[in-house]
Amino acid sequence: MNIEDFACPVPNLHYERVQMVHGAGGLAMAQLIDHIFLPAFANPDLDLREDATLLSIGAEQIAITTDSFVVDPLFFPGGDIGTLAVNGTVNDLAVRGAKPLYLTAGFILEEGLALEDLKRIVASMSQAARAAGVKWVAGDTKVVPNGKGDKVFINTTGIGSLATGNALSCHNIKPGDALLVSGCLGDHGIAVLAQRPGLQFDTKIESDCASVVNLVQAVQQAIGPDFHACRDATRGGLTAVLNEFAQASGCSLNIEESAIPVRPAVRSACEMLGLDPFSIANEGKIVLAVAQEAAEKALAVLRVQTLGSDAALIGKATTGPAEVILKTAFGTHRILDLPVGEPLPRIC
Amino acid sequence: MNIEDFACPVPNLHYERVQMVHGAGGLAMAQLIDHIFLPAFANPDLDLREDATLLSIGAEQIAITTDSFVVDPLFFPGGDIGTLAVNGTVNDLAVRGAKPLYLTAGFILEEGLALEDLKRIVASMSQAARAAGVKWVAGDTKVVPNGKGDKVFINTTGIGSLATGNALSCHNIKPGDALLVSGCLGDHGIAVLAQRPGLQFDTKIESDCASVVNLVQAVQQAIGPDFHACRDATRGGLTAVLNEFAQASGCSLNIEESAIPVRPAVRSACEMLGLDPFSIANEGKIVLAVAQEAAEKALAVLRVQTLGSDAALIGKATTGPAEVILKTAFGTHRILDLPVGEPLPRIC
Repeated sequence: MNIEDFACPVPNLHYERVQMVHGAGGLAMAQLIDHIFLPAFANPDLDLREDATLLSIGAEQIAITTDSFVVDPLFFPGGDIGTLAVNGTVNDLAVRGAKPLYLTAGFILEEGLALEDLKRIVASMSQAARAAGVKWVAGDTKVVPNGKGDKVFINTTGIGSLATGNALSCHNIKPGDALLVSGCLGDHGIAVLAQRPGLQFDTKIESDCASVVNLVQAVQQAIGPDFHACRDATRGGLTAVLNEFAQASGCSLNIEESAIPVRPAVRSACEMLGLDPFSIANEGKIVLAVAQEAAEKALAVLRVQTLGSDAALIGKATTGPAEVILKTAFGTHRILDLPVGEPLPRIC
Repeated sequence: MNIEDFACPVPNLHYERVQMVHGAGGLAMAQLIDHIFLPAFANPDLDLREDATLLSIGAEQIAITTDSFVVDPLFFPGGDIGTLAVNGTVNDLAVRGAKPLYLTAGFILEEGLALEDLKRIVASMSQAARAAGVKWVAGDTKVVPNGKGDKVFINTTGIGSLATGNALSCHNIKPGDALLVSGCLGDHGIAVLAQRPGLQFDTKIESDCASVVNLVQAVQQAIGPDFHACRDATRGGLTAVLNEFAQASGCSLNIEESAIPVRPAVRSACEMLGLDPFSIANEGKIVLAVAQEAAEKALAVLRVQTLGSDAALIGKATTGPAEVILKTAFGTHRILDLPVGEPLPRIC
């Protein structure tokens, strides 16, 4: 084949093979979705670029989402792959305004995994599901030979009900909306990173892995339809969520860097490693867009809860262009672009 | 720790670590489920040992199932991991009496996978979903480093509706029921095996990978409530399904070996390799239990369809004990026990 004839399936980034960055929640992954998955899978029922899809089954409206978890290492301060697999999927339902009801679990085990480790992970899943009020309804197990997997991968699919509350969608964001975060950013990514061989460093940072169901429901109850959109800031962190908000709504998002809560230990670790805390994954933090007049009430409701005690107003939406503009601590402005990928692979 | 103090989590088979056999649909897998998964996950909504679980959401009854696919190689005569990932999950809904409606897809990609291979798999998934009349409603992609996965693993979760038809369940099997299979057994397993490096042999056998939705619906429409139970004979093959039927119903199942359809090429390959065709995975074959008086009608309805043209009556259920008794071609009888595991790993 002549190089002139080659039509790369992911044109802008020119990949021929899957790279780690294709799974990292940034530009490369967005292109993989746009150029390979959507042309084959898209249909009117698939809610593009939402965390969960809304479906009608008979007279009922349900929300559905699926997520695979490949975190390395399996166990880290504040959680393990089991707590992640439950909370990650539960949170994707919650941020769409749904009440999580049911979960399925699919395990891919590597030959040689200690059954005691599997028991510990399964116990975490059971406990996290009870805490989030969801039931297990289906499961599957596959085993691959040693060296063809990595201890354990878990897929969870979640079903929720929209009987109560309004559906939240990043397409609902309007100019004037206030943008809030529910707490300090970057804890999960730094907690996992600190456990990696070759990178181990001393930190007391724990993963923030938790169900955000109560946070979302509290804001829904307090401000009703003034609650427009919500996302959990996982792969790609706050930066990815804000860019998704801007793209979906067409709004320009003006963010105050000094207003974004980051723990000093996370900030230090990021400075040491050359990482941007705003692009690092969280597993129990939400970003909210609410009508400006409801912002104070939403903040108050978040701050009452332990998980939301550091909630902050970080900026507001204005009329386009669809981009995220960060006002730095020095008073300058820069565009916060979607990263090519989160800098930390296998964080969830 | 003293060896006396060690309580193995899978007592009968005494494993401390995951082995290939734990994923092979036999006794070792059943024990993994009994001793690790069920104690943590069981609840009244989880239909134990059914291929799909029935759930109420508001006024609607739905069926749900999940399955991960790790087949090696990815491409084989008659299908690929994409066709398997769709049909495997669609079939688990169909054999419960549900109409498959929606699918989710979770991809775990290994760094270095050719994007052209991924496109080919995704195209197969799209085509198989259209053929089965199901829509994609959620997706997720993760990437793991080279050597920590094996090209691509796919999880699919399926949602079906029970608005039409009766729920089928292996708990409904009664003494007197006729047992049918929809066609020749062992094709999928032998087709995949023939592609394995070191084992490659010449055969024209193709995988039977296909949706059984139309087969099940045709029998449902023809004999209504006389259709008691159905399973697709995947991991563990016919042997695993018959043992599950016997355990769930408490019936003794009397099977005529000479009545079970197996292609000569599959029989030859099995003899050469020392394999039992009844324990080998199929991906488009169902085993049915129907009221004796409806057996002829069910057979006729199956045989009209291409996928059911080799359908056969293979035996009947009698009062217990709960076991499967095979009358051999020589007129002797032997118990067809649940295999420890299917002899072919990574067949689906």
